[in-house]
Amino acid sequence: MIYLDNAATTRPLKSALDDAERALNDLYFNPSALYAGGIQTHREIDGAREEILSLLADKENFDLIFTSCGTEADNQAIFGSVKRGNFVTTLGEHAAVYECARELKNRGIDVRFAPLNGDGSIDSDALLRLVDENTSLVSVIHVNNETGAINPIERISEKVKQKNGRTLVMCDGVQAFGKIPVRLTNHIDFYSVSAHKIGALKGTGALIKRKKINLAPYLYGGGQEKNHRSGTENVFGILAFASAAKKRLSSLKGDSERVLKLREKLFEMLDKDTFVRLSSISGTPYILTVVAKGVRGETLVRMLSDQGVFAGTGSACSSKKPYSRVIEACGLDKELLNGVLRFSFSAENTEEEIASAAKIINATAKELYGRVK
Amino acid sequence: MIYLDNAATTRPLKSALDDAERALNDLYFNPSALYAGGIQTHREIDGAREEILSLLADKENFDLIFTSCGTEADNQAIFGSVKRGNFVTTLGEHAAVYECARELKNRGIDVRFAPLNGDGSIDSDALLRLVDENTSLVSVIHVNNETGAINPIERISEKVKQKNGRTLVMCDGVQAFGKIPVRLTNHIDFYSVSAHKIGALKGTGALIKRKKINLAPYLYGGGQEKNHRSGTENVFGILAFASAAKKRLSSLKGDSERVLKLREKLFEMLDKDTFVRLSSISGTPYILTVVAKGVRGETLVRMLSDQGVFAGTGSACSSKKPYSRVIEACGLDKELLNGVLRFSFSAENTEEEIASAAKIINATAKELYGRVK
Repeated sequence: MIYLDNAATTRPLKSALDDAERALNDLYFNPSALYAGGIQTHREIDGAREEILSLLADKENFDLIFTSCGTEADNQAIFGSVKRGNFVTTLGEHAAVYECARELKNRGIDVRFAPLNGDGSIDSDALLRLVDENTSLVSVIHVNNETGAINPIERISEKVKQKNGRTLVMCDGVQAFGKIPVRLTNHIDFYSVSAHKIGALKGTGALIKRKKINLAPYLYGGGQEKNHRSGTENVFGILAFASAAKKRLSSLKGDSERVLKLREKLFEMLDKDTFVRLSSISGTPYILTVVAKGVRGETLVRMLSDQGVFAGTGSACSSKKPYSRVIEACGLDKELLNGVLRFSFSAENTEEEIASAAKIINATAKELYGRVK
Repeated sequence: MIYLDNAATTRPLKSALDDAERALNDLYFNPSALYAGGIQTHREIDGAREEILSLLADKENFDLIFTSCGTEADNQAIFGSVKRGNFVTTLGEHAAVYECARELKNRGIDVRFAPLNGDGSIDSDALLRLVDENTSLVSVIHVNNETGAINPIERISEKVKQKNGRTLVMCDGVQAFGKIPVRLTNHIDFYSVSAHKIGALKGTGALIKRKKINLAPYLYGGGQEKNHRSGTENVFGILAFASAAKKRLSSLKGDSERVLKLREKLFEMLDKDTFVRLSSISGTPYILTVVAKGVRGETLVRMLSDQGVFAGTGSACSSKKPYSRVIEACGLDKELLNGVLRFSFSAENTEEEIASAAKIINATAKELYGRVK
């Protein structure tokens, strides 16, 4: 099996599971409990919090709230920030942001979507034109999960603040953290991350928040996470997240260079009569999105699965829709929209896997062409 | 170490971890993915859903939505149901319900709290008097997490529906499921449960919902859980939950009888000059709450911790408050409020543990009396 859908989710790192195992056996206590085990568990969560936060931002200015996933982090930041005025976001957002925007629109909020460039990156000038004195929040995805395009969030957020200093800026960093260098500048107010995209577990995410901003709880209850997020903390998931994040960041540069070579090798080996590249060279090394001309990406994904190659059609989360609204917003010809294939890598993928995968992909596409013609 | 805080959280069952382990190694795929691994993972989640649902309700009339915790299930049911009119709940609710009620009050909703009896059970007649033609939702905790009192939710929900057929009824079942027999009748619309209270993991809960009721999503995004709860599913947590639930239910009656004996043995052995019983005989076997006269429960909990006995002061989730609002609502004398101690059991506790714990508790209380006098 060759797993090339690491942007959808990753196999948990053994080291992360080992590091977190104590949480199952020796640290299973409720972190709110007053006895030794509870206090120790609480301390370990705070240690994990500091660890992850330190990899992203300075702890003088930022807090980290553990959530159950990236989606929850996005929902909390958005619904907590947009009470009035308008909400500016983009056509390139993950469903976790896009569907919040649609819900806000249903609730009567003025929601504005900035257009995309051909590679899925954001048209920054167009976005800035949408920002005005009534903009409550701007939300921009850091790395596009469907094409891998990297948006210059430092520059965009700075310009947003120049235009309206009261506007809050959030970035969905789920495909960025652990894969490309991230350091939050002082124009970014919220940043969401997810554990299972970097070798930790489903069920844990985090929202990094500028300290001085008041954000309403999204879950009300026992007052955990300094009352930002009630519910017993997912101790095992949190400790595994910190472990995986630390490991990923410690080898980010080397991994990134190696994965970039894998990405380029894969594209180089793909049959150019069949496959058109959507991902730009400057995008994240971890994603290569192509279009298979004249066939359905979904069919190809299923055929590849039979051959032991697991790939995506774009966002796993929106795979129930006929084709991707994000790819459509890249301006791709209608007849090509169905043919999207996303290959996404992890630091564990090898050159041999990529070479084998490329051969299987070419052969499978050829077979499919034979059928449809 | 003798762990007697199982109402706060439980040690994960080895069998549940073993059953779920595949999710870490062989089933780590994104359940929305279209290839074999994704489809298999999705199927396993649905299997777990059917398994858990079958232990609680009939699948013709009920759905199960996996959430990240009991708190999230409570929040979703409450905020999704109370848009107007009034909300009737009780003074005996867990913070996950009570704090939602307070937030609704802040938002201008008429919130009505039914009083408690001395053992923490609900004064049903008083509750029914609060229900009128404008009541959107009634929320009643099934087993009180601080005293163990069992509320007759079948009878209460039936009477609520007789008074107003359009009123929805929800029950927080976090301390009931897996511990006392639960079968949802057709007057109950929502029921919340939590995995980590019955030997599975923190980070997973569920909301059981009557099928015919439309409930808004609480998290917007990729449309998972039939669009009721977006966010990548916590596969490991969900499979562990199903495993633990199945195990607990398979031996519920025997466990319950044995734990009842442990509860009574513990109380019998406690020094009656010091400890006054709050939990009624008819409450859940799994909780024994007492008051230590004239001392602070918190201090006693810390001293017991030094002796290797882990107990609670009530709800772990609200342990930051000086004393429990729930115990206060039971009508306990003000000077006794600080002395609350909750011992909560699991099927894994032994008679020997209980006998040792009782001796340590008596001796520790005696020592503390010596200090404060």
